[in-house]
Amino acid sequence: MSATFGNNIKTTVFGQSHGHYIGAVVDGLPLGFKIDMDKLEEFMRRRAPGKKYTTKRVEGDNVEFIAGVEDGTIISNTICAVIKNKDHNSTHYEIFKDIPRPSHADYVANIKYNGLMDMRGSGSFSGRLTAPICIVGGIAKQILQERGIQIASRLKQVGSEIDEAIDIANPDMEVLEEINRKNVPVISEKVEARIEKLLEGIREEKDSIGAKIECFATGIPIGLGEPNQDGIESILSSRIFSIPGVRAIEFGLGVEAAYMKGSEHNDEFKIRDKQVSTMTNNAGGIVGGISNGMPINFTVTMKPTASIGKQQRSFSMSKKESKYLQIEGRHDPCIAIRALPVIEAVCAIVLLDLIDIL
Amino acid sequence: MSATFGNNIKTTVFGQSHGHYIGAVVDGLPLGFKIDMDKLEEFMRRRAPGKKYTTKRVEGDNVEFIAGVEDGTIISNTICAVIKNKDHNSTHYEIFKDIPRPSHADYVANIKYNGLMDMRGSGSFSGRLTAPICIVGGIAKQILQERGIQIASRLKQVGSEIDEAIDIANPDMEVLEEINRKNVPVISEKVEARIEKLLEGIREEKDSIGAKIECFATGIPIGLGEPNQDGIESILSSRIFSIPGVRAIEFGLGVEAAYMKGSEHNDEFKIRDKQVSTMTNNAGGIVGGISNGMPINFTVTMKPTASIGKQQRSFSMSKKESKYLQIEGRHDPCIAIRALPVIEAVCAIVLLDLIDIL
Amino acid sequence: MSATFGNNIKTTVFGQSHGHYIGAVVDGLPLGFKIDMDKLEEFMRRRAPGKKYTTKRVEGDNVEFIAGVEDGTIISNTICAVIKNKDHNSTHYEIFKDIPRPSHADYVANIKYNGLMDMRGSGSFSGRLTAPICIVGGIAKQILQERGIQIASRLKQVGSEIDEAIDIANPDMEVLEEINRKNVPVISEKVEARIEKLLEGIREEKDSIGAKIECFATGIPIGLGEPNQDGIESILSSRIFSIPGVRAIEFGLGVEAAYMKGSEHNDEFKIRDKQVSTMTNNAGGIVGGISNGMPINFTVTMKPTASIGKQQRSFSMSKKESKYLQIEGRHDPCIAIRALPVIEAVCAIVLLDLIDIL
Amino acid sequence: MSATFGNNIKTTVFGQSHGHYIGAVVDGLPLGFKIDMDKLEEFMRRRAPGKKYTTKRVEGDNVEFIAGVEDGTIISNTICAVIKNKDHNSTHYEIFKDIPRPSHADYVANIKYNGLMDMRGSGSFSGRLTAPICIVGGIAKQILQERGIQIASRLKQVGSEIDEAIDIANPDMEVLEEINRKNVPVISEKVEARIEKLLEGIREEKDSIGAKIECFATGIPIGLGEPNQDGIESILSSRIFSIPGVRAIEFGLGVEAAYMKGSEHNDEFKIRDKQVSTMTNNAGGIVGGISNGMPINFTVTMKPTASIGKQQRSFSMSKKESKYLQIEGRHDPCIAIRALPVIEAVCAIVLLDLIDIL
Repeated sequence: MSATFGNNIKTTVFGQSHGHYIGAVVDGLPLGFKIDMDKLEEFMRRRAPGKKYTTKRVEGDNVEFIAGVEDGTIISNTICAVIKNKDHNSTHYEIFKDIPRPSHADYVANIKYNGLMDMRGSGSFSGRLTAPICIVGGIAKQILQERGIQIASRLKQVGSEIDEAIDIANPDMEVLEEINRKNVPVISEKVEARIEKLLEGIREEKDSIGAKIECFATGIPIGLGEPNQDGIESILSSRIFSIPGVRAIEFGLGVEAAYMKGSEHNDEFKIRDKQVSTMTNNAGGIVGGISNGMPINFTVTMKPTASIGKQQRSFSMSKKESKYLQIEGRHDPCIAIRALPVIEAVCAIVLLDLIDIL
Repeated sequence: MSATFGNNIKTTVFGQSHGHYIGAVVDGLPLGFKIDMDKLEEFMRRRAPGKKYTTKRVEGDNVEFIAGVEDGTIISNTICAVIKNKDHNSTHYEIFKDIPRPSHADYVANIKYNGLMDMRGSGSFSGRLTAPICIVGGIAKQILQERGIQIASRLKQVGSEIDEAIDIANPDMEVLEEINRKNVPVISEKVEARIEKLLEGIREEKDSIGAKIECFATGIPIGLGEPNQDGIESILSSRIFSIPGVRAIEFGLGVEAAYMKGSEHNDEFKIRDKQVSTMTNNAGGIVGGISNGMPINFTVTMKPTASIGKQQRSFSMSKKESKYLQIEGRHDPCIAIRALPVIEAVCAIVLLDLIDIL
Repeated sequence: MSATFGNNIKTTVFGQSHGHYIGAVVDGLPLGFKIDMDKLEEFMRRRAPGKKYTTKRVEGDNVEFIAGVEDGTIISNTICAVIKNKDHNSTHYEIFKDIPRPSHADYVANIKYNGLMDMRGSGSFSGRLTAPICIVGGIAKQILQERGIQIASRLKQVGSEIDEAIDIANPDMEVLEEINRKNVPVISEKVEARIEKLLEGIREEKDSIGAKIECFATGIPIGLGEPNQDGIESILSSRIFSIPGVRAIEFGLGVEAAYMKGSEHNDEFKIRDKQVSTMTNNAGGIVGGISNGMPINFTVTMKPTASIGKQQRSFSMSKKESKYLQIEGRHDPCIAIRALPVIEAVCAIVLLDLIDIL
Repeated sequence: MSATFGNNIKTTVFGQSHGHYIGAVVDGLPLGFKIDMDKLEEFMRRRAPGKKYTTKRVEGDNVEFIAGVEDGTIISNTICAVIKNKDHNSTHYEIFKDIPRPSHADYVANIKYNGLMDMRGSGSFSGRLTAPICIVGGIAKQILQERGIQIASRLKQVGSEIDEAIDIANPDMEVLEEINRKNVPVISEKVEARIEKLLEGIREEKDSIGAKIECFATGIPIGLGEPNQDGIESILSSRIFSIPGVRAIEFGLGVEAAYMKGSEHNDEFKIRDKQVSTMTNNAGGIVGGISNGMPINFTVTMKPTASIGKQQRSFSMSKKESKYLQIEGRHDPCIAIRALPVIEAVCAIVLLDLIDIL
């Protein structure tokens, strides 16, 4: 089973790309909390398509609370929010029933479900199901903010273009909030320009490009997470990999740690005004699975959008013979750009779930 | 809560580094299965200390089944296996109660548990708890092998020394089995020699070094994993990060995907003799969270051992002032070397759990 | 957390009595199954109010599938069904915010949630949430029927009026189906008449009356359930007690077993035409938590409706002083009558969940 | 899967009747708690065989903590306790492999596990697995007592002999503690004498007899349990039915509620010295699944011991023909007598788990 996650705050996601509604049920959000609906809408817009460099498919993604929320206030232990799917045109998808798209779930879904799952728009595998996650995560972010916890992210890399470094022991969360108003949420304006140019080229080539997203959470109390099987990395990675297209997750210095010596990688302690912290934050705020009070930091690699306009080799499932395939329609040249709020949403949901039990 | 994991096959790990016993209870292994005890012992030895380049602390790690196994055969739905801790000398650890070791769980555990958890040998945070995981995983590997599924791993990188590439669409599992008899389980003999030299230097410096481990699983049926929240990457990453010292996990090309175009990264289909496969295996055998029949491939980055002999800056928790700390005793210069069987064990447990529900 | 249950088939219920919608998300129903919508509507009507001897509050309880079902066919692993609440008139409930109704959740909810849960119509404690359970259970019943498993129930007792005995080793499921078209679903027409008269009196007195419901499931394969913690009784009782008003559950002879000797209570085996069965079915089809192939039989006691028109002693939460309370409006004189389909629904959901894993 | 239960405090039971050890792993007990070992031993003795009216099989049931407890103090988040099985004589059981005992799990286990589960002493279905539950529950009782919560039980009925009534709104816990030192833990001495005589007769007849156990918990805070699926009755009943031989559970007045009117059954409020309580406690301390501060009260019916010396009809599984069976050895004439501490243990574990999350 795969639609439900969380312990103290349990989220269940439902719907498919081309059904009538997608949505989420959440059990355990704090009663009486007043959701800032404008802020939530703004958060949702960061994920929505229709921006520059994202797919042109227009979906309003208007959030409707059909249970548990009245006048923006949570009044029940279970809430249900839905989004109406507006874009039902699925003529593009007919062909993929027989000729599966490379690096899409078409083929495995067909085998796994004997062809019985409605795979229009990728069915239950669709990235569209990250929209309900953003509703829940958007609310979780607001609740966390009231408790002094801030979450923000940036594009760290697109193709070979890499944004400037951030001090992960002391990230400037306001700057990160700020850049997320841009089409390409990086810090360096030079890199921004280069990525814009790169994306124009990618779009013209009818190709796509991979990217890395870096996420930060500050104001974290010491002691979140459990030893052994329920460390923060375990819980967070599990949920992050549920986002379509994620290929890697790194905490703190991540893969860089392979090159380093213990004397370089260890975070030595410092004490100032009786306050304990670490000099570096190579661990990304997590030691032994437990938060150490430093900013939580992790980086997610997302593959290039699998749907590309270029011709690709596939095969006919019915005829058992090779076929070429060309995917029509407009697709995100870099799906990662719309994934930033999703990563933040997942991070917020996981942290809120952990904080609740302290 | 953090000691139990799995769905169809539920494993509960218990014990601490310096208690009397560590062990595991497993619920749901196939009744009647005959465990090859010699093979299991051999598998356990790969994790055990006392080899070249690993810590000199001698533990026999003899597995004793105290419930559910008779004459090597599983006769109950719950089995319990224990290992007696032989090395109780904990004089080294007294000091860390007040002066926490950098990048160890000493500090966060003290805060989280108000000093009430016995942290000798790192308590519940100890890497020693991966030994029971190896018992369960060693059995799971044997069960999987009967079903045609093979799991093997190698050291991919130590510091800047990188082993030669493997074709991830077609890994040679026999070669991987073979190299794991070596002290430094890499394929290239040149790289092996360079790593040996590197490790000698690291040991002399009383320092440690990070590494990457690459794991493969072949013979995987199509359709394992669930869409949305329970994809293979979600489940596997969650368990892999429970291994102390893991900093990153990558599936297939992993972080490389950020540099790539869709036309490069997509795995195009090929069909030969009515058999479907993909030309490349950049996805590492998993699409949409579901196995596609290609070899599963993932890479784990492990940080350098946190315990080093070099002087480090810490602080006194009681006096709230800076202190220097030097960790006595012998430690693994590269903890990753002993982690290979642990990674394989986790992979085997996760796959067996998934296969059971097909 | 409390809205989600099940293993292979996971149900999440949401909504409150006086919100806009109530509904359920179900993960894991068999793809491709064609729901008989007429049969489902008919099943829902058995629970709906507005019948003789039930509350006059009119709710249509029209089921709307907003995700995962198209033209009655299940096309996604998650489905979502909702019912629009039509009866929002909540003026009756204002007073209970301060003066809690005896044997209702008003008081405990106020304490537990600091007055922040919307308790109109009993909020999340409302019996109205059994309607979504009936949607899921109604579908589960249809799926089970295709697999040869039949579920039916009857009123066994209302007040001191007790229906005639049924041979629990061999219940006539058609008769049970048949009587459920009646206002008072008992077998004996004499008892039916006496109960009708009893209920008329109860209604006139503005009082209510308790009852017992007996449920049967036939066509059960041997081996459902697990030893130790997940026996059928454990799972079934857990879900049955989630139905508001349930005070007791008995399997097979239930409380009668206390009076009996082993030689009377044991179900001896018989073998006929190589077919194994038991002479009696005192165990109600479950031994050691596992189904033994005989009909599953259990009896549920439901308390008299807590809402009565008679004056009762309560208190003012704000003034901390005693108050008399009289509950206006029309209420079910015997809530159990509407609970029969709910009991069947829960039984069907639990059995389908168990059967799936065989 | 069936060996693990609990949320904040997770218990995993392992072992079989005729294996080397049985035991339990518990995750989440409060660190630093000092277990009163004498009290625990005393509690274990209440369940142990070898008393008057219980089976003569001698088992010491000495509890050994092999992990997480040092000098009686909990020093790790996971603890493991074991009991060595002393009585391995299983010659009696050989015959049941082919000729299953009526109302035992022999037959269903054989079918379910294809004869691969070791069913000596009933394997995983054995009542012996309640011993580890008593270890965990005995500790839980001690922890609860520190928090002002007391749990006690009594034999309410054996056959037709019924103990005197207790005021369930105000039970005398000291009296209940006291009577549990007796062989027949009832309040009325007259009833005690009659039960003793009854049991002598039952033993001579080589038969057995059913019984009811009533359990109380006092000092309960308001607000334990969750609405909908995780009410106290749901959680408690689920665990109580895991005890072999349980046939019914009733909360408060239980099955009596079927006979009653709302005006009789409702618990009206009273307020005295600003303290709120209810005049009666017909609900057994639980409303809407949530504790209301009154004593929790429930009654469990246990069937007569299935193993009796009298001749019974069974059949040969290999020959598919009827066979008579006579079970040798000495068995409990009334298994319920040893079940009192088990019921208390389960109640304590469930309440501790719930209290933890407040």
